Amino acid sequence: MIPRYSRPEMVAIWSPETKFRIWYEIEAHACDAMADLGVIPRENAEAVWKAKDVEFDVARIDEIEAVTKHDVIAFLTHLAEHVGSEEARFVHQGMTSSDVLDTCFNVQLVRAADILIADVEGLLAALKRRAMEHKDTLRVGRSHGIHAEPTTMGLTFARFYAEMDRNLTRLRTARDEISTGAISGAIGTFANVDPRVEEHVCEKLGLSPEPISTQVIPRDRHAAFFAALGVVASSIENIATEIRHMQRTEVLEGAEFFSMGQKGSSAMPHKKNPILTENLTGLARTIRMAVVPAMENVALWHERDISHSSVERMIGPDTTITLDFALARLTGVIDKMLIFPDNMLDNMNKFPGLVMSQRVLLALTQAGVSREDAYAMVQRNALKVWEHRVDFQEQLLADEDVVAALGVDAIKEKFDMGYHTKHVDTIFKRVFG
Amino acid sequence: MIPRYSRPEMVAIWSPETKFRIWYEIEAHACDAMADLGVIPRENAEAVWKAKDVEFDVARIDEIEAVTKHDVIAFLTHLAEHVGSEEARFVHQGMTSSDVLDTCFNVQLVRAADILIADVEGLLAALKRRAMEHKDTLRVGRSHGIHAEPTTMGLTFARFYAEMDRNLTRLRTARDEISTGAISGAIGTFANVDPRVEEHVCEKLGLSPEPISTQVIPRDRHAAFFAALGVVASSIENIATEIRHMQRTEVLEGAEFFSMGQKGSSAMPHKKNPILTENLTGLARTIRMAVVPAMENVALWHERDISHSSVERMIGPDTTITLDFALARLTGVIDKMLIFPDNMLDNMNKFPGLVMSQRVLLALTQAGVSREDAYAMVQRNALKVWEHRVDFQEQLLADEDVVAALGVDAIKEKFDMGYHTKHVDTIFKRVFG
Amino acid sequence: MIPRYSRPEMVAIWSPETKFRIWYEIEAHACDAMADLGVIPRENAEAVWKAKDVEFDVARIDEIEAVTKHDVIAFLTHLAEHVGSEEARFVHQGMTSSDVLDTCFNVQLVRAADILIADVEGLLAALKRRAMEHKDTLRVGRSHGIHAEPTTMGLTFARFYAEMDRNLTRLRTARDEISTGAISGAIGTFANVDPRVEEHVCEKLGLSPEPISTQVIPRDRHAAFFAALGVVASSIENIATEIRHMQRTEVLEGAEFFSMGQKGSSAMPHKKNPILTENLTGLARTIRMAVVPAMENVALWHERDISHSSVERMIGPDTTITLDFALARLTGVIDKMLIFPDNMLDNMNKFPGLVMSQRVLLALTQAGVSREDAYAMVQRNALKVWEHRVDFQEQLLADEDVVAALGVDAIKEKFDMGYHTKHVDTIFKRVFG
Amino acid sequence: MIPRYSRPEMVAIWSPETKFRIWYEIEAHACDAMADLGVIPRENAEAVWKAKDVEFDVARIDEIEAVTKHDVIAFLTHLAEHVGSEEARFVHQGMTSSDVLDTCFNVQLVRAADILIADVEGLLAALKRRAMEHKDTLRVGRSHGIHAEPTTMGLTFARFYAEMDRNLTRLRTARDEISTGAISGAIGTFANVDPRVEEHVCEKLGLSPEPISTQVIPRDRHAAFFAALGVVASSIENIATEIRHMQRTEVLEGAEFFSMGQKGSSAMPHKKNPILTENLTGLARTIRMAVVPAMENVALWHERDISHSSVERMIGPDTTITLDFALARLTGVIDKMLIFPDNMLDNMNKFPGLVMSQRVLLALTQAGVSREDAYAMVQRNALKVWEHRVDFQEQLLADEDVVAALGVDAIKEKFDMGYHTKHVDTIFKRVFG
Repeated sequence: MIPRYSRPEMVAIWSPETKFRIWYEIEAHACDAMADLGVIPRENAEAVWKAKDVEFDVARIDEIEAVTKHDVIAFLTHLAEHVGSEEARFVHQGMTSSDVLDTCFNVQLVRAADILIADVEGLLAALKRRAMEHKDTLRVGRSHGIHAEPTTMGLTFARFYAEMDRNLTRLRTARDEISTGAISGAIGTFANVDPRVEEHVCEKLGLSPEPISTQVIPRDRHAAFFAALGVVASSIENIATEIRHMQRTEVLEGAEFFSMGQKGSSAMPHKKNPILTENLTGLARTIRMAVVPAMENVALWHERDISHSSVERMIGPDTTITLDFALARLTGVIDKMLIFPDNMLDNMNKFPGLVMSQRVLLALTQAGVSREDAYAMVQRNALKVWEHRVDFQEQLLADEDVVAALGVDAIKEKFDMGYHTKHVDTIFKRVFG
Repeated sequence: MIPRYSRPEMVAIWSPETKFRIWYEIEAHACDAMADLGVIPRENAEAVWKAKDVEFDVARIDEIEAVTKHDVIAFLTHLAEHVGSEEARFVHQGMTSSDVLDTCFNVQLVRAADILIADVEGLLAALKRRAMEHKDTLRVGRSHGIHAEPTTMGLTFARFYAEMDRNLTRLRTARDEISTGAISGAIGTFANVDPRVEEHVCEKLGLSPEPISTQVIPRDRHAAFFAALGVVASSIENIATEIRHMQRTEVLEGAEFFSMGQKGSSAMPHKKNPILTENLTGLARTIRMAVVPAMENVALWHERDISHSSVERMIGPDTTITLDFALARLTGVIDKMLIFPDNMLDNMNKFPGLVMSQRVLLALTQAGVSREDAYAMVQRNALKVWEHRVDFQEQLLADEDVVAALGVDAIKEKFDMGYHTKHVDTIFKRVFG
Repeated sequence: MIPRYSRPEMVAIWSPETKFRIWYEIEAHACDAMADLGVIPRENAEAVWKAKDVEFDVARIDEIEAVTKHDVIAFLTHLAEHVGSEEARFVHQGMTSSDVLDTCFNVQLVRAADILIADVEGLLAALKRRAMEHKDTLRVGRSHGIHAEPTTMGLTFARFYAEMDRNLTRLRTARDEISTGAISGAIGTFANVDPRVEEHVCEKLGLSPEPISTQVIPRDRHAAFFAALGVVASSIENIATEIRHMQRTEVLEGAEFFSMGQKGSSAMPHKKNPILTENLTGLARTIRMAVVPAMENVALWHERDISHSSVERMIGPDTTITLDFALARLTGVIDKMLIFPDNMLDNMNKFPGLVMSQRVLLALTQAGVSREDAYAMVQRNALKVWEHRVDFQEQLLADEDVVAALGVDAIKEKFDMGYHTKHVDTIFKRVFG
Repeated sequence: MIPRYSRPEMVAIWSPETKFRIWYEIEAHACDAMADLGVIPRENAEAVWKAKDVEFDVARIDEIEAVTKHDVIAFLTHLAEHVGSEEARFVHQGMTSSDVLDTCFNVQLVRAADILIADVEGLLAALKRRAMEHKDTLRVGRSHGIHAEPTTMGLTFARFYAEMDRNLTRLRTARDEISTGAISGAIGTFANVDPRVEEHVCEKLGLSPEPISTQVIPRDRHAAFFAALGVVASSIENIATEIRHMQRTEVLEGAEFFSMGQKGSSAMPHKKNPILTENLTGLARTIRMAVVPAMENVALWHERDISHSSVERMIGPDTTITLDFALARLTGVIDKMLIFPDNMLDNMNKFPGLVMSQRVLLALTQAGVSREDAYAMVQRNALKVWEHRVDFQEQLLADEDVVAALGVDAIKEKFDMGYHTKHVDTIFKRVFG
């Protein structure tokens, strides 16, 4: 976790304080359930809730752990310091450490997912606003980085919206994947703890009981979770890459918002660097790098080994914190980014009219000109535009063969931009409903 | 694609013949839609269907491509050889190559997903059958590779069932992710092709229209698809690892079925190697390796670049073919695997009764013995078992303090296996309904 | 392996014919060594060489394998068909299949490395030639895709040369990593085969004996090998990305060579797509994807398990074939790529003179102007250039404060390109010696 | 960076204090060189050294950065607070931030590499000691987890030694890869800074001048560096996996050292879990996950973009800190691990004598028995051992056909362990010299 790439709300999920608070809730709810079942005395269960508003002392717990070398035991010892060791004697009865650790980890991941879902919703709102704003802003579409045909800036925002909307669904699915808890004992057989304890704790924490666990919750769930985050990160890279391209000196169709007070570059207006989106490109790589180890974590030995734990201690916080930061940063970039419609038109006309060459070619063949002749007609005029940057339409109008084949009006009509934007509303309706 | 790790049905999806057949259907349905819209003459659309039963000549298409250096043009040229070049003149009108390529790729992935879904269903049936068969077969549960508490072999199969059942859902979601098609023209604006053509073609092919495409279908869909396959592969590795452990000479609780006619090892009955599950472990790695490049494919430049194409030419066939093979191989392994219940009991009793030490410890503390004393009592008896492999229960019954604390009957009761299996039915109900 | 991304010489290394030829040599040399040691009769060793010029019948071996289910036994059976089964009876004595398989795999990797090394040498020659050719071709250097300061095209080629030269070293190291062989028997103890057999076979095949093997050659060697290939692939992506940027419509400082006979795009001169370098970008991803599974292959169980085998059956051929193809393709691209020096100057002057703003700023502060004042002076003139595309030098010469601070000559001097190219020779000397 | 998986010396390399100290040295040495060249006054260069023993105030620098939004400017401002702003006015002249950042990063990586190299040397010493100690400790070698033939525990340690010795070489190569520095200005042309400044600074810092840089040092170097760390991590996983297998309840041939004071498990001697090596398995995954993003960092746009930076802020510290910790932990494990030679013999005799079946088979064929007959003889006796755990040798001696073929003495001789260990010294000589 890098402070500069993190936001407090997500960081808080991964703090020791939050972790111990969740542990506490698991233990306290479990005691309630055991009391309901008559397994432990009601008063002992109630006593645990005395610590309801306690802020657990992380330093003290660490101190105990230094002796016991066991984090859950350290916590329980500390809890007993608050509740009274006699009163606390039934806490954790029949449970195993992983019941607490795995259920807690999933609670944290669910909360993290909730933030990420809200992040994407915020990003979607920004993308939608910019899409509407630039629905009709003409711009050249590019395949292979090369001018192809006209499109609009709104369509660019709209496709990012559609992609992020799919990511919203993926995050919701990912949230479901890990919203389970397990209180099933040493090897998952419920030998020492009734399944109804698990049901009660899960209900209180907003989780479903894991249908079958083995001390640990199965790690295919976590693999799917981190894989979903990797896809979201890849979409962030996709959007960031577009903006980086737009801001290139030669393209300059858009730019990250630039605060003039920022030191260093204000003297050089041409030197406004897309550093936020470059940064997002890098962050995407670091989010994605969690995917493979999360998948390697699935094949634990027999009922469990602990190899997954160190991996998750890292990727749990790092990946969710970084993705939260990245989504928020991207939302800010989209929200404020500068769009330069004039430059878009200038770029489209770098070789004046040439983006319409395909359409003219098509018109010629449809008018009955053979493919070979049509090619030749387009080519001889296109080359003049390419070499001398003259206007393509003018060349065509001066070409007797072309005029003979199409007529003046039809030639002019081929340069109508409306041809390319006529279905923008249809597409917007598909995307935004 | 490695022939020895492939099965014909999946391989066929990726053959040139299948590809050209799908291309043909896309073009023919598109012509129908254009005729419906009055864009092209009805008779030309109908003429295309003359090739309905033609087996396209791959060698001939390759020959044309060697000249045109363009695969779709080569195919269209060949198609015209069947349909007549006059009749075929409106085929592909207003469309771009990617309309055909991307829609075809998704059709192939959908078909591949259908096979994989059926594969997992087959695997689930095998796992369920073996789970039922061994529901009550006692076996020691192991954490960290070390004996923990008793469980049953049925629970092992049941948890693999539950995991694969989640994978079934993931594969269905993955199938949905890529069941879209696009016929949207050069840059996705439908400038030269009506959106209703796309709708018609997609309906005929069982796809949904991609809400917004940009010459290409957005690659976050494919990233999510291959990520799902990576999770399935990790679960395969998980099951394979369990079986490899079971077959170890020292463990020998299960084994891949062994055909006595197999050369080489029949003279050495102890040398039956779990080569199928080791192979599955390796195959899982190769399936998983597609995940990152699929994610790297998402950030294409502007409306598209072609960097994704070479990646998909490899991982499209390789990953689906390998996963299909792996699922089928695993199903065979599960179906026929040998289970050795006697060895399971022998292993559990390697240190006779010691797997119950935790339970005795718990009983002592519950009987009011202090934690320290309880530890001491268990420890002194456990060490004898550890060192001399004597029977733990006998030691306890000979220990006055333990007898005083628990009584003879309670001690004996602690060695009742039913204690550990009492919730097996509950878990089976959760898993199998 | 995708035929369109492969070249015959590398493909041949991975053919069954080559594999059986290498197996044969291993067995024949091993027989020689055993005869030298008096372990087997000399005449039996000599008899094996009768098959020296035989082309082994792959179909026949496959046929035998279908029965024996063991590839090495199938080969030995076939070999006996050539040599005579009595004469061949000592072949493979005391050896294990992996002695043949692993040694063969390393021979193949060494040969593959030799081709890759030659490929890089060819690429270096092309890069050097283009670097020399464009040593002084002025071009704007860009950080963040934004104009920074002048540099030369030669320096771009030179840095790719330097990077590929490091890759040459890495490939040579990688070749060394896997140039070992092992003939050490079932578990690597030489129980049934004398270490001198291994020494003899390795010497004949140009390998070193693996100091300690365990049926298999340790897989850290292969992990390091494929990691090196991944780095080379990343450098290919680096160069490809530069060219893709250069060829963008708005930049157009260079382009992949374009053959005018190529169908489809000749009518549209502006639509020359950098498809080769985009393809190289994708191929780089597929080469890189072998790195992680190769590393996952290192941790085999005990003396060996066979999980690595399926991985290597894929990544062995696929990665080397693809990298060979990619290096050759890149060499062709570099060799023939079009460079547009005029466009480079045009781009540099998009905001005329503005790339010198940093230098002017520096000169002002060095002339004793306070940093704040210097910023203000540069900024007010730079903004005019930014907004109206007037000439920066002219603005400065018209700004009394700037003239007062620097003088006319010094201002003019700041626009001398020689300032930026004065160390090009130094750098070239460092790179090319 | 996870505190529990880190050691102070490596952590210190990545502290802000260390970073600023290195930045200071780069700037101060650069001033010296500029003074030598007559570019800046000698007294200004000397003045910078006034801060030689200053501990830079990180909080103060952060405070300035909050305003300037530029880390290097913040540092320089703070430096001027120590040196005097008039005296400090020539610091950093002609340099760019990356000159400081990239050179510093490489200094940190070199120092990290030095620690890692020392770590591996420590591990090698432990492995060698244990190898010598158990050179002749008999143990069954296993392929596929199945008993194969006898070997010794010393050979296991020896092969880990050989593997780690290769890693030592790889780390040294990796150190060389990144021991370069660059002081080459905005775009790497040395326009504003003489190459001799770079040479001087590099010499003082123990680096080589980067032959050609482009504001940044080329990232193929870093990719190779992190790839090497990934290979080392994979070897750690390899060793850890062996120990985890050894410690399994059923195998119990070795164990991580267990401190009896450790709470929780002392009552259950059978429940000593290999948690350190399981942890190492997980840590290996987290080290390896840096490899792909480091490779993705290579293809920066043009002379540089900043996407690599966020990746390196994470993987720079995280990967080196984790690997340092992992190597130290593994060294401790090896150093103190418990070896149980008696259990090794017990395991080898699980099916008494059966590990010799291969050898008997070979002897029979060498004695002129046909392969089919030899198989049958071995098989019928082996099956008895397999089914009834009787002694293989005794069965053979009671089998008339076998005795007829081999004679009693020869049969007995086949069970001599010395046969399998006769080349241990040869192998040790190869490995340890």
